[in-house]
Amino acid sequence: MTMKRVYNFAPGPSTMPQEVLEQAAREMLCYGDTGMNVMEMSHRSKQYQAIFDETEATLRDLMHISQDYAVLFLQGGATGQFAAIPMNLMTGSGTADYVDSGNFAHGALVEAGKYGKVNVVASSKDDKYAYIPELDASKFNPDADYFYITTNNTIYGTRYARLPETGKVPLVADMSSNILSEVYDVNRFGVIYAGAQKNVGPAGLTIVIVRRDLLGHAMPITPKIMDWKIMDEKGSMLNTPPTYAIYMAGLCMKWLKKQGGVEAIEKVNIEKAKLLYGALDDSDFYRPTARPDSRSRMNVTFTTPSPELDAEFVKAAAVHDLVNLKGHRVVGGIRASIYNAMPIEGVQALVDFMKKFELENK
Amino acid sequence: MTMKRVYNFAPGPSTMPQEVLEQAAREMLCYGDTGMNVMEMSHRSKQYQAIFDETEATLRDLMHISQDYAVLFLQGGATGQFAAIPMNLMTGSGTADYVDSGNFAHGALVEAGKYGKVNVVASSKDDKYAYIPELDASKFNPDADYFYITTNNTIYGTRYARLPETGKVPLVADMSSNILSEVYDVNRFGVIYAGAQKNVGPAGLTIVIVRRDLLGHAMPITPKIMDWKIMDEKGSMLNTPPTYAIYMAGLCMKWLKKQGGVEAIEKVNIEKAKLLYGALDDSDFYRPTARPDSRSRMNVTFTTPSPELDAEFVKAAAVHDLVNLKGHRVVGGIRASIYNAMPIEGVQALVDFMKKFELENK
Repeated sequence: MTMKRVYNFAPGPSTMPQEVLEQAAREMLCYGDTGMNVMEMSHRSKQYQAIFDETEATLRDLMHISQDYAVLFLQGGATGQFAAIPMNLMTGSGTADYVDSGNFAHGALVEAGKYGKVNVVASSKDDKYAYIPELDASKFNPDADYFYITTNNTIYGTRYARLPETGKVPLVADMSSNILSEVYDVNRFGVIYAGAQKNVGPAGLTIVIVRRDLLGHAMPITPKIMDWKIMDEKGSMLNTPPTYAIYMAGLCMKWLKKQGGVEAIEKVNIEKAKLLYGALDDSDFYRPTARPDSRSRMNVTFTTPSPELDAEFVKAAAVHDLVNLKGHRVVGGIRASIYNAMPIEGVQALVDFMKKFELENK
Repeated sequence: MTMKRVYNFAPGPSTMPQEVLEQAAREMLCYGDTGMNVMEMSHRSKQYQAIFDETEATLRDLMHISQDYAVLFLQGGATGQFAAIPMNLMTGSGTADYVDSGNFAHGALVEAGKYGKVNVVASSKDDKYAYIPELDASKFNPDADYFYITTNNTIYGTRYARLPETGKVPLVADMSSNILSEVYDVNRFGVIYAGAQKNVGPAGLTIVIVRRDLLGHAMPITPKIMDWKIMDEKGSMLNTPPTYAIYMAGLCMKWLKKQGGVEAIEKVNIEKAKLLYGALDDSDFYRPTARPDSRSRMNVTFTTPSPELDAEFVKAAAVHDLVNLKGHRVVGGIRASIYNAMPIEGVQALVDFMKKFELENK
């Protein structure tokens, strides 16, 4: 059996802690004394319910989520929630405020337009989404059913340095690419949701954290699996949940707790980002693409002097076991995703390679 | 590390072939020479696309699916498709025929009622779904957008021995609990779909096989992730698919091919069902609950002389490593799910235990 491990900078699905994978391998034929793998367990069994409950409890602990919020483990990805959010929430005034800060934010607002009136309060689209747009509170609709942001934009490598003040209008946040990477006060949000495959665990699991007063307002056309209230009443088990993805996410969360939780990993993440952006800023060969005030700590985007060298960089890095550094197809360039599970040694190895590549290609 | 393995008769998620789990364990830290697990791979990478393509090709091979059909790997379970089916298809006459043959069939027709007019052509509800209802073709609506059946009813242990003749009306089948267990002529169907967690692989993956002329008719309110045409155009990757569940399903499919494919496993399944129903019919202690002409080969439901003995049976069987034999909570009694991955030795062990239990409790 080959046992090589690379530094994997993929934007999601993405690298996972090695000790989590080792535990999953050990438990593959037999979990505890059950005589079966977690994938083979009935989701209605006591053993599986214990895994599920522990995962929810660990997430609540890591993010300090109070009982005022429901925690749902769903399927369908963030893209599924692009529809679920308006179907569950756009039933008051039938309108919502959206900030257009990237590809996924844009996809979300287009999808919401099927179910109600979308008010785009700000956009950085015309500037290739290189920054988080300024927010002018006078453009916010005080009667909106919710106010929607994407806290971290995976493709462009941008992040909200400050959250908008939306008053009584519930703030809804797609945290797919930075959940659990930094401390957020959950109480500032109406809804936080995230596809798991970037910073939580494997693909196929979507986490939705929703303030309980926002449950129970779904449109009659809402598919049952997208109705948060039904899913909350059924403990996320209206139907069979993605059982193994939840188990793996739980292992990753327990790993994070062992690292000291979100508070501790945030410090490491700031360190990692500083190291990489520092290397970019110190060089006149590399050019970071996100505006400094909007820089993401999770996805660091940059270019070399030419698209040809970008491609060469990605190829040469892979030879050094630094893989998946190609920028997203809609923007090109280079992107290093440095989620929680990427150790600082991986970032250091990348920085070392960057210096070498610069010397060779300047 | 404990390495006990039990005979797991769970109805889904359910037992998986041991050699598949062994391969998954071997590949947990490093798939091929990639230096990463499948869960860590970008779904847009060449390596992952190869896994995905091979899984689709193996499924097409096993079921002899022609290019007239799209094969989709989705999320949301069969329950998600309860909504997706009417949203994609109920846009001609706005009506559909449903056969109410069990809990899931009933759930499907209730959900469809949100999106159009449902005609229940037959039901065995009043008889506790103990059989597949007789179908009177004169009650079929020739203008229905589709005709819906559940080929195998997991909870009640029933199976269609004959498919209905629906003429030009596309036949839509929930095959969640018997897909890949017996030979079906795919060309008889408009849509075949299945949650993977019973007879294909792990939970979190939903397979939809749809005749191409049925694509492109979705209602405007259809969430993008539920729009089959969009998903077909994007190769099931409008967003991140459940990558690991697809990989595991692929391993299970390759295992099935090694057993000789669906044709060969159907013979084994008939053998297994014969062994178990034979034991039930030979006894006056046990009582099979499904009507003989409607018996499922996948889920065998029965009772002992009393609910107390049923519970005793389930408990005593578990001591002999024969687990998850409790009937579904809506019906009680005993249920043995004997999907493809349950070897005949497991059924024999159950039959042996049944004889012993009968002798001790008669």
